[in-house]
Amino acid sequence: MSIENFKPVMTAEEVNAFLKQVYPQLNDDFADYRALEVTPGGCTVRLDATERHLRPGGTVSGPSLFTLADIGGYVCVLSHFGPEALSVTTNLNINFMRKAEAGPIDGHCRILKFGKSLVVFDVDMRAPGGLTAAHATGTYSIPPRK
Amino acid sequence: MSIENFKPVMTAEEVNAFLKQVYPQLNDDFADYRALEVTPGGCTVRLDATERHLRPGGTVSGPSLFTLADIGGYVCVLSHFGPEALSVTTNLNINFMRKAEAGPIDGHCRILKFGKSLVVFDVDMRAPGGLTAAHATGTYSIPPRK
Amino acid sequence: MSIENFKPVMTAEEVNAFLKQVYPQLNDDFADYRALEVTPGGCTVRLDATERHLRPGGTVSGPSLFTLADIGGYVCVLSHFGPEALSVTTNLNINFMRKAEAGPIDGHCRILKFGKSLVVFDVDMRAPGGLTAAHATGTYSIPPRK
Amino acid sequence: MSIENFKPVMTAEEVNAFLKQVYPQLNDDFADYRALEVTPGGCTVRLDATERHLRPGGTVSGPSLFTLADIGGYVCVLSHFGPEALSVTTNLNINFMRKAEAGPIDGHCRILKFGKSLVVFDVDMRAPGGLTAAHATGTYSIPPRK
Repeated sequence: MSIENFKPVMTAEEVNAFLKQVYPQLNDDFADYRALEVTPGGCTVRLDATERHLRPGGTVSGPSLFTLADIGGYVCVLSHFGPEALSVTTNLNINFMRKAEAGPIDGHCRILKFGKSLVVFDVDMRAPGGLTAAHATGTYSIPPRK
Repeated sequence: MSIENFKPVMTAEEVNAFLKQVYPQLNDDFADYRALEVTPGGCTVRLDATERHLRPGGTVSGPSLFTLADIGGYVCVLSHFGPEALSVTTNLNINFMRKAEAGPIDGHCRILKFGKSLVVFDVDMRAPGGLTAAHATGTYSIPPRK
Repeated sequence: MSIENFKPVMTAEEVNAFLKQVYPQLNDDFADYRALEVTPGGCTVRLDATERHLRPGGTVSGPSLFTLADIGGYVCVLSHFGPEALSVTTNLNINFMRKAEAGPIDGHCRILKFGKSLVVFDVDMRAPGGLTAAHATGTYSIPPRK
Repeated sequence: MSIENFKPVMTAEEVNAFLKQVYPQLNDDFADYRALEVTPGGCTVRLDATERHLRPGGTVSGPSLFTLADIGGYVCVLSHFGPEALSVTTNLNINFMRKAEAGPIDGHCRILKFGKSLVVFDVDMRAPGGLTAAHATGTYSIPPRK
């Protein structure tokens, strides 16, 4: 698949159902992360941040935003590659820019490269009002298809 | 404080007690993260990874390792600067290198720079056996002392 | 200056003239880096890559693309803050995605955060044809104004 | 090759001779980068920084330090894998910590992971006196051996 010709193979609903099945920890222990939308070459994921996602100072914690970014990359891979791949994150770089209060935070994800073995993506995480709370760039490694 | 002359002002026990008070989410929802040791210019933090910290494939998840790295940087700042500062992570870059099974994972943290407003650290996260599961470099911003 | 209300204070030509004066190394030894355009909240910088910018394999080298990204961040700061600040890069993360041959490479830069002391930006570096050769995110630290 | 059992296959002199042959740009245009020593699992590389490597403020420029880090990773790969591989940098994250004046800057490099297709390394770049001027972590991708 070349980057000019992205064609998702799973919808947001299908991705959420798949995540519930293979990654129950995300739903049980971290909770409140889900795919909102899949588009050619990207996706939007949401964290409904509550008290449990806050850190000292009353703002959404770094680990909660990292999880949103990581899920965003995973949803990019799943939705464009299919559910069979056991892909893993190899690198993620995140910048925290503004404090975000509890509430919905949307991660707008773009696939920057979709290679045979590496997928590079970025995620712009926006709090209500539209300002960027955090921005991340990451890489998923995809094992060879059999 | 210059990097040649580090002198911690809090012990691991004091840091853990402080974290329990100001960051209850870490204990209640993420659980099992704590400071093991504080040394001049660094610290060791531990994640006792259980089922809840795993991801598809049965290995410790990226968000769990990110949290360990982030806590490691926070413990570096708290233990060397004191509990009054409301420091925040501004950047964290993490590389995932090897799968790690459930069990203790130790984050060996070094302060690379301790400036007036920015603290740079790195964390080598090792699973039992001593191989690096993940490695991170990060920056905490410290607000001006009053 | 808030991110919603960006107002550049220098044009691309003024930035290039300033760079020539304070950073002669860029022109003499690295050469062929310049600002093409300044827009509210961003800028475009160009590297005219020649033989000297190539690495084994005949593609534009990592250091050449890093320099383009770093200059992009510097032009963002200069053009929106003015020439008096002696700002310095504190962090830069770069992903190399596709090989790029000799020729013009444009770095499309966006300011993601413009704080009192830290400016965060990203740069999408595109070779002719429009595909991303490399993508970077970085932070500049701005010393307090006197 | 497992990380516990590193055995370099090229010396620093052999690596320098190889670099001179395949990467003349490094010697002609960037100059003054070379391997000092290869050890099992790492290497030391040196930049003899002169006027041409400085940036505004009279300190060694970000691109010059990035080049040192990138060369350090390349020397790690070459010395432990051999000269046949056309490896490429996929990611590099660098933190700039202290100003460094003109003079020798040594990059102390460690291989953190040596996988079948990805090599992860870090580099501690020290100015005379021993304080870290910059620290980088990076990844090289190695194409399949034929």
